[in-house]
Amino acid sequence: MAVKTPNEYVESLKDGRRIYFEGNLYHDVTEHPILRRGLQRGLIDYAMYQDPRYKDLILAYEDNGEPYHISFKPPETADDLVQRQKLQFLQSRIQGGRSSGAKFVGIDALHAVTAASRMIDKKTGVSKYVERVEAFREECKKMDAALAGGMTDVKGDRKLRPADQKQHNDFYVRVVDESQDGIHVTGCLAHISHATYVNYIIVVPCRAMREEDKDYAVAFAVSPAAEGVTLIHPQKDPVEWGDYFDYPLLGYNVSGDCMVVFDNVFIPWEHVFLCKEWQFAPLVTYQFANFHRLSGLSNKVGMVTLDVGAALLMAEYNGLEKDPVIRDKLSWLVWYAETVKALVKAAAANPTTDPTTGWLYPDRIMTNCAKYFGADNHHHAMKVIQDIAGGLVATIPSGKDFYNPATHDMLEKYLAGKEGVPTEFRMRAIKLVKDLANIEAAVAAIHAEGSLAAQKMTFLQIADLEEYKAAAKWACGIKDGSEHPLYKDLMERPVYENIIK
Amino acid sequence: MAVKTPNEYVESLKDGRRIYFEGNLYHDVTEHPILRRGLQRGLIDYAMYQDPRYKDLILAYEDNGEPYHISFKPPETADDLVQRQKLQFLQSRIQGGRSSGAKFVGIDALHAVTAASRMIDKKTGVSKYVERVEAFREECKKMDAALAGGMTDVKGDRKLRPADQKQHNDFYVRVVDESQDGIHVTGCLAHISHATYVNYIIVVPCRAMREEDKDYAVAFAVSPAAEGVTLIHPQKDPVEWGDYFDYPLLGYNVSGDCMVVFDNVFIPWEHVFLCKEWQFAPLVTYQFANFHRLSGLSNKVGMVTLDVGAALLMAEYNGLEKDPVIRDKLSWLVWYAETVKALVKAAAANPTTDPTTGWLYPDRIMTNCAKYFGADNHHHAMKVIQDIAGGLVATIPSGKDFYNPATHDMLEKYLAGKEGVPTEFRMRAIKLVKDLANIEAAVAAIHAEGSLAAQKMTFLQIADLEEYKAAAKWACGIKDGSEHPLYKDLMERPVYENIIK
Amino acid sequence: MAVKTPNEYVESLKDGRRIYFEGNLYHDVTEHPILRRGLQRGLIDYAMYQDPRYKDLILAYEDNGEPYHISFKPPETADDLVQRQKLQFLQSRIQGGRSSGAKFVGIDALHAVTAASRMIDKKTGVSKYVERVEAFREECKKMDAALAGGMTDVKGDRKLRPADQKQHNDFYVRVVDESQDGIHVTGCLAHISHATYVNYIIVVPCRAMREEDKDYAVAFAVSPAAEGVTLIHPQKDPVEWGDYFDYPLLGYNVSGDCMVVFDNVFIPWEHVFLCKEWQFAPLVTYQFANFHRLSGLSNKVGMVTLDVGAALLMAEYNGLEKDPVIRDKLSWLVWYAETVKALVKAAAANPTTDPTTGWLYPDRIMTNCAKYFGADNHHHAMKVIQDIAGGLVATIPSGKDFYNPATHDMLEKYLAGKEGVPTEFRMRAIKLVKDLANIEAAVAAIHAEGSLAAQKMTFLQIADLEEYKAAAKWACGIKDGSEHPLYKDLMERPVYENIIK
Amino acid sequence: MAVKTPNEYVESLKDGRRIYFEGNLYHDVTEHPILRRGLQRGLIDYAMYQDPRYKDLILAYEDNGEPYHISFKPPETADDLVQRQKLQFLQSRIQGGRSSGAKFVGIDALHAVTAASRMIDKKTGVSKYVERVEAFREECKKMDAALAGGMTDVKGDRKLRPADQKQHNDFYVRVVDESQDGIHVTGCLAHISHATYVNYIIVVPCRAMREEDKDYAVAFAVSPAAEGVTLIHPQKDPVEWGDYFDYPLLGYNVSGDCMVVFDNVFIPWEHVFLCKEWQFAPLVTYQFANFHRLSGLSNKVGMVTLDVGAALLMAEYNGLEKDPVIRDKLSWLVWYAETVKALVKAAAANPTTDPTTGWLYPDRIMTNCAKYFGADNHHHAMKVIQDIAGGLVATIPSGKDFYNPATHDMLEKYLAGKEGVPTEFRMRAIKLVKDLANIEAAVAAIHAEGSLAAQKMTFLQIADLEEYKAAAKWACGIKDGSEHPLYKDLMERPVYENIIK
Repeated sequence: MAVKTPNEYVESLKDGRRIYFEGNLYHDVTEHPILRRGLQRGLIDYAMYQDPRYKDLILAYEDNGEPYHISFKPPETADDLVQRQKLQFLQSRIQGGRSSGAKFVGIDALHAVTAASRMIDKKTGVSKYVERVEAFREECKKMDAALAGGMTDVKGDRKLRPADQKQHNDFYVRVVDESQDGIHVTGCLAHISHATYVNYIIVVPCRAMREEDKDYAVAFAVSPAAEGVTLIHPQKDPVEWGDYFDYPLLGYNVSGDCMVVFDNVFIPWEHVFLCKEWQFAPLVTYQFANFHRLSGLSNKVGMVTLDVGAALLMAEYNGLEKDPVIRDKLSWLVWYAETVKALVKAAAANPTTDPTTGWLYPDRIMTNCAKYFGADNHHHAMKVIQDIAGGLVATIPSGKDFYNPATHDMLEKYLAGKEGVPTEFRMRAIKLVKDLANIEAAVAAIHAEGSLAAQKMTFLQIADLEEYKAAAKWACGIKDGSEHPLYKDLMERPVYENIIK
Repeated sequence: MAVKTPNEYVESLKDGRRIYFEGNLYHDVTEHPILRRGLQRGLIDYAMYQDPRYKDLILAYEDNGEPYHISFKPPETADDLVQRQKLQFLQSRIQGGRSSGAKFVGIDALHAVTAASRMIDKKTGVSKYVERVEAFREECKKMDAALAGGMTDVKGDRKLRPADQKQHNDFYVRVVDESQDGIHVTGCLAHISHATYVNYIIVVPCRAMREEDKDYAVAFAVSPAAEGVTLIHPQKDPVEWGDYFDYPLLGYNVSGDCMVVFDNVFIPWEHVFLCKEWQFAPLVTYQFANFHRLSGLSNKVGMVTLDVGAALLMAEYNGLEKDPVIRDKLSWLVWYAETVKALVKAAAANPTTDPTTGWLYPDRIMTNCAKYFGADNHHHAMKVIQDIAGGLVATIPSGKDFYNPATHDMLEKYLAGKEGVPTEFRMRAIKLVKDLANIEAAVAAIHAEGSLAAQKMTFLQIADLEEYKAAAKWACGIKDGSEHPLYKDLMERPVYENIIK
Repeated sequence: MAVKTPNEYVESLKDGRRIYFEGNLYHDVTEHPILRRGLQRGLIDYAMYQDPRYKDLILAYEDNGEPYHISFKPPETADDLVQRQKLQFLQSRIQGGRSSGAKFVGIDALHAVTAASRMIDKKTGVSKYVERVEAFREECKKMDAALAGGMTDVKGDRKLRPADQKQHNDFYVRVVDESQDGIHVTGCLAHISHATYVNYIIVVPCRAMREEDKDYAVAFAVSPAAEGVTLIHPQKDPVEWGDYFDYPLLGYNVSGDCMVVFDNVFIPWEHVFLCKEWQFAPLVTYQFANFHRLSGLSNKVGMVTLDVGAALLMAEYNGLEKDPVIRDKLSWLVWYAETVKALVKAAAANPTTDPTTGWLYPDRIMTNCAKYFGADNHHHAMKVIQDIAGGLVATIPSGKDFYNPATHDMLEKYLAGKEGVPTEFRMRAIKLVKDLANIEAAVAAIHAEGSLAAQKMTFLQIADLEEYKAAAKWACGIKDGSEHPLYKDLMERPVYENIIK
Repeated sequence: MAVKTPNEYVESLKDGRRIYFEGNLYHDVTEHPILRRGLQRGLIDYAMYQDPRYKDLILAYEDNGEPYHISFKPPETADDLVQRQKLQFLQSRIQGGRSSGAKFVGIDALHAVTAASRMIDKKTGVSKYVERVEAFREECKKMDAALAGGMTDVKGDRKLRPADQKQHNDFYVRVVDESQDGIHVTGCLAHISHATYVNYIIVVPCRAMREEDKDYAVAFAVSPAAEGVTLIHPQKDPVEWGDYFDYPLLGYNVSGDCMVVFDNVFIPWEHVFLCKEWQFAPLVTYQFANFHRLSGLSNKVGMVTLDVGAALLMAEYNGLEKDPVIRDKLSWLVWYAETVKALVKAAAANPTTDPTTGWLYPDRIMTNCAKYFGADNHHHAMKVIQDIAGGLVATIPSGKDFYNPATHDMLEKYLAGKEGVPTEFRMRAIKLVKDLANIEAAVAAIHAEGSLAAQKMTFLQIADLEEYKAAAKWACGIKDGSEHPLYKDLMERPVYENIIK
């Protein structure tokens, strides 16, 4: 097989998985219109295989010529990262903003366990995890698996670490049993993107662990249909799917960040990628975070492009595209989008190579700079766009009224903006502004791929703080014996009286 | 009659008015669940009359002892403004945030035409408008009218003034005909709060007019059931009304900011309060804006209180109420809310009195300071709240899953936060955070009661810019002959050498 | 005597006090031009006594007709607070921005110990502190004392409380000895405004204390000339005092926030206002903070007025006063200044009365809202002003070049802005913008009267957080048994189906 | 010669140039301590030549082996841009923040006229300007010229274009006469960095010109000693140069952004690089802006590194480096600095090549993103740093008091912070924070290399706005016939019902 058709993909999900949604149990995602629509985010990969324009971008080939999804190839050069980013840009362009593909988060988790396997095996001198991960990769390639990444535990009391929780021990996914064949896990993950629609979820730990937390230091792959797994799909506002006039984004593209409950689920050893080696937990976590923040932000480029485009259209349709104050705001929006793009591209183009294993990953600083910048400005961008678009964003009548002959002419006449712009265009743009402001996008801007607080923690961890301090000490003459490579052999600053004789 | 019962109020709306909503025509707002729910914002007045706790606050009495809604009384003292504000605080407390009452915007429009009538008649020396307005007030009191204010024209090309529009002449409501009995008006208003649910809409001009715009300088009262009037109700997301678990705010409280189309509508002279006296148009506009910005912000106090409360609950339920960084954010939120309250109260407590007529109105500067402050920070407040609340705001399952025995225990166990807090409470608070971020609230924060740009314009118009400049000139020794009362006779600043002998 | 002349004031400071400044010891502030200039901030009170225009504002009278500075009168009504604010507005107007008067901080400290004396005596049932404080007040009135307030200890390691400091025990002022006649104190205060120029410093604790910190719970009055007191005056940039062209503000008005070192200084009991009653320390602290934040902000009104005035002048002089984007920025500045004013006035006009003693003090919430608002926006305001003013703020030639005949005409010609504006005016305004951005003003904006962090702490302490939570619970249906007065008897929100039969 | 010694550089400036400073005329910059200190910014190049560590970085070589300053080489690859940036990073590291070197702005102007010469000659088909520019380059290389760039005209009324000014015609530098030998120019430039200390100023136009402005479309090189040139040096605060304790930055490093007045100055044709070809003026302007914004920001990296370092030191010295709220602020600062660095590096590493001439220049979008980001956050960064550092920044005593035996021990004892940190270090760091906040740095942050408004204008000019709009139209179904390359052949978004059969 190696690459599936869209039909094969959909069929592969009919495996008896248990999905609860709005009080009902479903075994097949095609049974409910909202669940069915969520599939579209994954279908794009399988649809693109069929399209000659995109084959080169999305496919790699085995030595025997068999094609497979290019994402399964571990990155070896900056170009590999850049190519994946181009694919993400393209997919979010096609899907009108946020997209994902069938392996969006999952590949980042696969990269994380791949990196970890190499580093752990190197360190322990035992070849164990590399073999498992690579065998799993082959399995995935062969079945062209749709993959989710499972990182976010439900966490309980946020102030307490995994082993210190009081109400029960399962707020973080943990190993409850271990046998010759594998392990059993219990726990629950929250907001796992696309989990309802994949063949495997790759679960990784979400934080550093202490020795007493070692049962929680676990990474593995699991099918959503495995015994003991329950999926609880998030509530979705009942917008009318397919009503692209009133809901240009939400009517098409629905996310499905579901809860995944594990009740003593058996995982065979070949799918276990970390088991109680608590010291390595943060390594998996940060490798995941790093890849995924870049993926998330590459994806977000599609959103910010829409944001700015919607504002430009509204300014024009309202007749204000030359108004100096409006232009000042538009310019800020363009800056915002272009800065996200510049940082996102730079993070992919300047990867870091792990010195011991040769593993290559996106620049951590740039990736986090990009993510923080995008997230920190999202709500302000929404404010600016809504400010430009006007109050109608909240009060616009339905497309059904626009297309009702009894009211069409009134709306055509009175909701017109600038001369020459069809009222229909203006209404569509207003509906777009409305959809862009949806709460899921807002919350995702902050929390997806790690919250603002997570990036802030990262900056203090990974930036060379000693360089900053050395610069300050150099400038004000503090000599405390510390030596920084950039400063210890630096030429003294030139002083006229010392130089000119 | 003088005060209606709730039933009488609802019956009074069954007058044949024509309401289009999502492609259908309704003549009775009780026919559709969404339209019916919109009534609740108005019902509160009529319900409160019945309640002995609130009679003193909401009722005034005629000399003959007949009670009437206190809002019909024109404000004569600061206490009158403060009392109305207390009523607004109370109503938004009861209704859980944004409220209105059956006369919310309408009273502000009535105040505007009252003020204008006194000023115009004073200026022209002809007693005309005062009589009409006072007669209309009596009519309203007698029927205990629900009232809307109609200010916002659809405007067309925002760069063009009323008479300069190119596509047609009706982008601003205008007088198309005038006879012995009255006038005929054509045009369309946008986002007229509660218009579907009132007995009268009081229409006022939304901007200053030039002589060539004089047909647009018109103010009048009109019934939504008048011949030639069409109401087009805004599209509403089909949330489940009455599902207070999943939609604690939206499931209860639905706004209805509709379009009001006038097609050659006849208005008898007794309901015309401005007709072509274009010089007076801005006077009506700013009197309306002033009262209504205060009303809007008084109402918003209920919203910001909820915002902050939701964040406090989420911090606590997540176990983070003592986390220093979270406390830093909570503190910012409290400051935000308390500053809104301080400014809003100060604006009511320090009214201005028009020197020629004795008309009393809220402090314009403080009112606009309050409105701008609240609006400018809304999106940032949402960001902070969502940051505190966490990603579940976007991915939380439905209440139907929580109350489904098959999944209840899982959710009970895994969505628990801090020990001792029922999961139900945490879920409710999360749903509240979600509802608070609704796009209507966001757009209303910016555009309701006038956009940020409108306030900015106002500051430059009404602040004493000469005082600012005089201060700067005084401080840096610029002597250009200008004289400001505060500076012209000021003592020179004391200089040691000049003073100490 | 009761009110001093300016000469008498200056003479009263020649008491042998020991002032170190830039490496030298001075006993008389008039000996050095910078020290001498610092006097001007205090001289204004004594100069105003002489001026018939201001007598009513600045003087109160004993029953025997003897006049005294009105500040010595404890506030009894809102009008008293408002009148003091008017005096502060006036003085900062005269002095071109930040001012103070000879009792600026000292009166706030006197109010603090007055409040504390009443509350402590009430609580303990022993009349002790009230007598002392009132006797001290009489002493101050009689000698028309210039007064400083001494609150800020040097603090050492900010993470450690007074008794936990490691390097020595004197990072907070403390009682080192106690005898029948009085106490001995050791320690050091930092940035005590005007301390070099006063007759008494009233020292109060700067934080809450635990029992183990009780030696640090001390309040007292002390003369800067007392044995064991050393004043270390802050470094001042050597601008040319009196060069009002190049330094319109700094050339006139110099602050002197000095260090006050106590080395076993004897304080007689009659000047001791708190001694080891550690439970009452925070009471003194917050009463001081409260009055002083209001004083500081009332004073800041003068600064923000200048800020905005300078920007208005620069916009005009550059020919940009009608540029829409510039106007947008100017409008923001006006909003900023007017909001500070609104909050500051409201805080004075709405005082709180202590229920047990009747003591009246400014509204704590409004005061802190005002302080935080002003401080939080200072740097942004500077950015906006500099943005408007242009690069010349950094590169403008000296007034000496402007008045040098060899270069005058060139500068006259080329530094001209808008037609009709003398180049001299433009240069003066640019110099003003430069002076407004001085680092002392910036740091004072944040740290004077308590840092941003101090206000943030205050909001969480004094706001009614339970009201916020009750609102949120009410809105989303959380019933946890808690009862808030505003919510426990509230009418249920009206629901159509329940009301309409 | 080809590379000068420091002495030769200083001697080369003794050419009779006329410098006015604080009312006096100087012909030699070494005559006044402030003027002399300004030299240091340029001396660094000449000092580095002597240092074997830096030769590879700063020198290039002629075919005959003769060395010359590498900046004279026009960039041909991304590596050339990156290397120049490394040199700038290094120089600003050595000089403790803002630096420049002797050719800082001048090289950017030389690049601008080089680019323009190629483009103009290509367009006109006449080889004229390339020859002149290259001959001038050879002249500069041979004499190892110190170079300034002269772009900013004084501008007069900002609302009026060059030819429309009312008071006189010289607000922009213009050609007043033209002969066989060359041209004569009159006008005045403002804030020309380092002009007092260079051998040539390369003057370029600062804006687009209309045909009627053609006399103002002029670019040329001129010696500051040329007849008719007057330099007016900016006023400098009289800090004590060499007092590195009290003024760690200002005591060393003084900028000299002077006015350059041209009174009918003769420029021989070989130094004229644009003369009345008004259509090409914006080309020179933007090529200059582009290179110079990158230089300026590369340089600023040194400043932001200091900013963050100073904050890190202060947090540590105050004992607050582990305080969560302080860490939150530090993290923001690190993010700020790292984002500036990421953008600045990306702009150099991803140059654009002019398609017709092969001319290579930094990415315009990234360069402007970087500049805007750095400038927009400068004042906020200062606020955060001052907030962390504490009030002592404004009130710290002089180093002279610290080193005065009479007060040393007191200051040593009482200004101590965290245990183990010498008080001297803490004082030095506080002085650094003070110096970092100097007004010149603040104004330069906004206005140097073009104001915020200039970047904003640029974003709307150079970003592909049509791509943004196309994205929005695609997403909401607006079909207006416009075609964008990225969208016109895009695959339709996959819809379940269409794909799955």
